[in-house]
Amino acid sequence: MAQVQKPSIPKGTRDFSPEQMAGRNYIFDTIRSVFKNYGYKPIETPSMENLSTLLGKYGEEGDKLLFKILNSGDAFSGISTADLSKLISQAPESSLTPEINSNALSLRVCEKGLRYDLTVPFARYVVQHRNEITFPFKRYQIQPVWRADRPQKGRYREFYQCDVDVIGSNSLLNELELVQIVDDVFRAFGINICIKINNRKILSGLAEAMGFPDKLVDITIAMDKIDKIGIEAVKEEMLARSIDKKGFSVLEPVLSFKGTTAQKLALIGNVVAGSSSGCAGVEELKALFNLIDEAQISQQVEIDLSLARGLNYYTGAIFEVKALDFTIGSICGGGRYDNLTGIFGLPDVSGVGISFGADRIYDVLLGLEKFPKEAIGGTKVLLSNLDEASAAYLLPLANKLRKNNISCELYPDVAKLKKQFEYAQKNSIPYFVIAGESEVNAGTVNIKNLTTGEQITVPLAEAHVSCQW
Amino acid sequence: MAQVQKPSIPKGTRDFSPEQMAGRNYIFDTIRSVFKNYGYKPIETPSMENLSTLLGKYGEEGDKLLFKILNSGDAFSGISTADLSKLISQAPESSLTPEINSNALSLRVCEKGLRYDLTVPFARYVVQHRNEITFPFKRYQIQPVWRADRPQKGRYREFYQCDVDVIGSNSLLNELELVQIVDDVFRAFGINICIKINNRKILSGLAEAMGFPDKLVDITIAMDKIDKIGIEAVKEEMLARSIDKKGFSVLEPVLSFKGTTAQKLALIGNVVAGSSSGCAGVEELKALFNLIDEAQISQQVEIDLSLARGLNYYTGAIFEVKALDFTIGSICGGGRYDNLTGIFGLPDVSGVGISFGADRIYDVLLGLEKFPKEAIGGTKVLLSNLDEASAAYLLPLANKLRKNNISCELYPDVAKLKKQFEYAQKNSIPYFVIAGESEVNAGTVNIKNLTTGEQITVPLAEAHVSCQW
Repeated sequence: MAQVQKPSIPKGTRDFSPEQMAGRNYIFDTIRSVFKNYGYKPIETPSMENLSTLLGKYGEEGDKLLFKILNSGDAFSGISTADLSKLISQAPESSLTPEINSNALSLRVCEKGLRYDLTVPFARYVVQHRNEITFPFKRYQIQPVWRADRPQKGRYREFYQCDVDVIGSNSLLNELELVQIVDDVFRAFGINICIKINNRKILSGLAEAMGFPDKLVDITIAMDKIDKIGIEAVKEEMLARSIDKKGFSVLEPVLSFKGTTAQKLALIGNVVAGSSSGCAGVEELKALFNLIDEAQISQQVEIDLSLARGLNYYTGAIFEVKALDFTIGSICGGGRYDNLTGIFGLPDVSGVGISFGADRIYDVLLGLEKFPKEAIGGTKVLLSNLDEASAAYLLPLANKLRKNNISCELYPDVAKLKKQFEYAQKNSIPYFVIAGESEVNAGTVNIKNLTTGEQITVPLAEAHVSCQW
Repeated sequence: MAQVQKPSIPKGTRDFSPEQMAGRNYIFDTIRSVFKNYGYKPIETPSMENLSTLLGKYGEEGDKLLFKILNSGDAFSGISTADLSKLISQAPESSLTPEINSNALSLRVCEKGLRYDLTVPFARYVVQHRNEITFPFKRYQIQPVWRADRPQKGRYREFYQCDVDVIGSNSLLNELELVQIVDDVFRAFGINICIKINNRKILSGLAEAMGFPDKLVDITIAMDKIDKIGIEAVKEEMLARSIDKKGFSVLEPVLSFKGTTAQKLALIGNVVAGSSSGCAGVEELKALFNLIDEAQISQQVEIDLSLARGLNYYTGAIFEVKALDFTIGSICGGGRYDNLTGIFGLPDVSGVGISFGADRIYDVLLGLEKFPKEAIGGTKVLLSNLDEASAAYLLPLANKLRKNNISCELYPDVAKLKKQFEYAQKNSIPYFVIAGESEVNAGTVNIKNLTTGEQITVPLAEAHVSCQW
């Protein structure tokens, strides 16, 4: 135990300092209070899920990004030790690709994985607890997820998701409610946003109109990149995915169209007129925008016919939220899924939800200097400790301040006033109450306002009131 | 993706329902608000730490209970595939114990582990961020920890710890503050407790007085079981650990002594009189109880000379909290440690802290029916949805209620009143606002108080006020 190590944390993970935590808690508290206001209820699921729950739900790429947990106890027992020693020292020599065996061996010694998102665990939860749940079930969940992605700026291996979903209801009022929640959350944050909405049924209709109804996934994957790579590159990617120029020529005017909501609905209505799915999507979008108009959303809401969202499980409305005054990817996204619980044995349950990206919202609030001072403030009052007698003299004041919910600290060690003063400054504590021998004898305290530099002397018995001047 | 699975979660882990979450959030919020009131600041550390940070910190037993995470990507690459296939199918055949090789192989393929407690990550944090931190550093941390323990009633593989520590100060005022925090937290919960205090230096003095100064760990391990197994069994265990009867005869009267604080201090002062460590411990305990007397703690606080606490890193005061009206293990515990950060290269930094056991506190609050109704309440008002027109009629009321922070839900689907009524009942929603065709035409709503069964009819414009009658 005596060996000294240079401490560090795994790459892609983070420590959060008190200052960062104050900002993060402000974000979580704000989001949570809006969720509650709309009647959503919190649940939590375990950090570890059985690998059988997670595997195959996020595509091949996602499977590779799962963090697997070694079985506890003797994970490699039942495996010959002679083989083990060879295994530790030797290089590959077989024609089998190492990867295949590595996966098989991983599954042999790992039964559990860290959760990759909150959606699949939620689906698992709903099916497992179906008999205890009253549908429609409105739940929110704010927990970390883990992905073995290559770490880079703004991409972490551990990060929080804030999900809100309603499951067991087909009504478009739920989609409206999510738009209202997004509106309320970002209005509370003071962040100007645009809520972009599209519908997966329209995308299906587009694929039909393009002549490639079976290439919906390829089309959405390519479309999803339009913001990053531009329309020409999207075209090239589609050609590479065997979608011909004629097909793309149907899509192109849709992607580049600018106009009002009514004009967009008219345009896309014409393009997908031959597809029943497409027409259903246009009807849903129309009805949703009628509701949105009536509900008087305070922020920008628009149809974005180029919006695709990568995840395959969406089947209806899809959402994405962009910050207007700060350049960053989408800060919120979601959509309707019609059969997420089917994989766990409960078919035909429709749900819709959105997820708030806490890390990006943090960056936006920080960049736009929108964190409210009172939200991130800590201790209000520091009480000096100049000797044992003066500390004892101030202890009852500390208790009185706390009873009045004014957070305070009695400096724990007898130390020079300068050191205690610096402690107050470094911790942004606005009031410093000082009592030396003469104040103890006089029954008074000096209160220094460290923001203005003013100092007053008041009787000890009144000090708890004066600390708020 | 079409295969249907019966969903389940790993043993020893838990899903938390909305009802459970409400209770848990009440616990965390209460604890957090007290911590803040005393000027403690939140930090968070990653769920994963490097195994080098964790290994060797919790004893051999603890190392075995760490959850290890398989390296991402191709964890077994560089290992021959021929060996891999043998490895998967064959039984042990070597004379080497499989365990040793399993451990070595684990370390070859796992670099990270899930955090086992919050104390070691905190020590790592302090050393890593020493240049950003102003000492004394008062921090709290509320996060889950993971242990590969055998699951049993009340023992989980994933559970939350709520730790509060101050590091970089030797003052006993910190010990007092922790006692005050414990007092405030459990007074807020309405749980009657006894705070038991002892001092590790006294235990060292006792070991000296017993003639076994080098057997302090054995003595504390045996003493720690006194509540579970009784004094006779503790004696037997000590004899088995080579502590003779003469040595135990010094300890026995100390363990069985009943008396006042002053009497206990006098007794132990005599017993450890020949040990400088023991005398220092008695002096610390005496000074702490003087502070406690002055601070007017509302709950029971007593010296417990049989209190040992298992963890080796404690060096001064040790604490344990018991619920008086409910049978369960300790619900809170901690102590002073003088060199926790030494292992990470920062010696001679003293700290003291305690940890609240949220799961046990939950059980006590539930068992004593102490969860306040308002703390665990959800949606206040359900608005009916009888047809499209009546839903549109009630939507503005929903917005108005939410603007007044009255959480409400508009039932999303058009459904029979009975179904919506049941939804309100099952979700314990106290008010049900109903508007059918006649109410829409009259500009009114019916409000049913589901607690009393009363119903009133009011104009729509006044309904947001009436929902609080």
